[in-house]
Amino acid sequence: MPRVIVFDVNETLLDMRALDPLFTRIFGVVSARQAWFNQALQSAFVTTITGEYVNFTRIWATALEMTAARYGTPLSADDCAAVLDGMRALTPHADVPAALERLRAAGLRLAALTNSTEEVAIAQLTNAGIAHFFENIFSADIVRRLKPAPEPYEYAATRLHVPIGRIRMVAAHAWDIAGALHAGCAAAFVARPGMVLDPLVPRPDVIGTDMAEVVDHILAIDCSG
Amino acid sequence: MPRVIVFDVNETLLDMRALDPLFTRIFGVVSARQAWFNQALQSAFVTTITGEYVNFTRIWATALEMTAARYGTPLSADDCAAVLDGMRALTPHADVPAALERLRAAGLRLAALTNSTEEVAIAQLTNAGIAHFFENIFSADIVRRLKPAPEPYEYAATRLHVPIGRIRMVAAHAWDIAGALHAGCAAAFVARPGMVLDPLVPRPDVIGTDMAEVVDHILAIDCSG
Repeated sequence: MPRVIVFDVNETLLDMRALDPLFTRIFGVVSARQAWFNQALQSAFVTTITGEYVNFTRIWATALEMTAARYGTPLSADDCAAVLDGMRALTPHADVPAALERLRAAGLRLAALTNSTEEVAIAQLTNAGIAHFFENIFSADIVRRLKPAPEPYEYAATRLHVPIGRIRMVAAHAWDIAGALHAGCAAAFVARPGMVLDPLVPRPDVIGTDMAEVVDHILAIDCSG
Repeated sequence: MPRVIVFDVNETLLDMRALDPLFTRIFGVVSARQAWFNQALQSAFVTTITGEYVNFTRIWATALEMTAARYGTPLSADDCAAVLDGMRALTPHADVPAALERLRAAGLRLAALTNSTEEVAIAQLTNAGIAHFFENIFSADIVRRLKPAPEPYEYAATRLHVPIGRIRMVAAHAWDIAGALHAGCAAAFVARPGMVLDPLVPRPDVIGTDMAEVVDHILAIDCSG
């Protein structure tokens, strides 16, 4: 049985640099975009540790408030709406459509698994023009536990009707790789610029500098049955 | 029964800006220091979520490797040792000694609770000249779960022989406030420059812009009872 290839969405498939002009306009510095996303991840991880579930759209919004407070920048409701709207309208990284096409052509099953809410995730992948590659688009919101907790990965395996070891999670984030491996999935790391693995976590058997290289490895390993 | 005042250590009591020249020498930019500390927190939170406990000294070291990989900067063993040594030799924020003195003079019991290992925490507070203020210096390492998980706060309460609601955790980090409140402690937030609360977490009843203001509030609230 070949593996089902499950993709993380934000930063792995979709290019968040499209938000840079918006963050530069609001905060005066482009680095605020990464500061905001880092804060969102930190808040998400803290809610996961304390068990106080909050959906990711709300985490994005409150992380934006925190970033504005940290920078001493006024933040209007329109600014916040512009960021949340912007998250729904990202384009895929340039290497993504052809990579998904090759995996599908090889007969592999593809799905997405994201911390975004289901409604947002479907809008994101549809607007990016790549929703049709995935037989399912799963949100961690359904199980009210965010990645890297094991529940979202286990949920995806259940819904895909495969043992969790037959899932391969593809992500550009060390924390998603950590969560997937811990839950029992295989993993594949896309080492996009600035993305590095965590030496505290076992290395996945697939690592590539871009999605094309990751797909080369996946086709070599996961198509055999 | 008055509350026992329990202090977070790094950034709350001790000023990490002393490491700025070191990070500037290694990475060429001072912002690498915050990037490193953020990565250490992220790695710590991920290990906590996946249940793969790792002590904080190792997290500091591997987060430094990740930061070096991200910046494309060579990192020698001497550089790594210099950072770890630097963490043991931080000075207190200027407002800290007098604040601790006032709390002690009011008869309050004081302790420290940190994610640093016990050996490092004792070295840190001793080198900073403030170890004598604390009847205990607790490390989350003893319970092999890092803040903001509930176990370290519960451990401190047990060792201090008070119900957890009689602990007030003082911290400059929103995530520590979140963990303390979730565990059942009271909390006090020190809004040092760049530090902001998370709107997703209930507001603590003590918030001050520096340690002196926090102590004013604590003396007004926690000495009665």
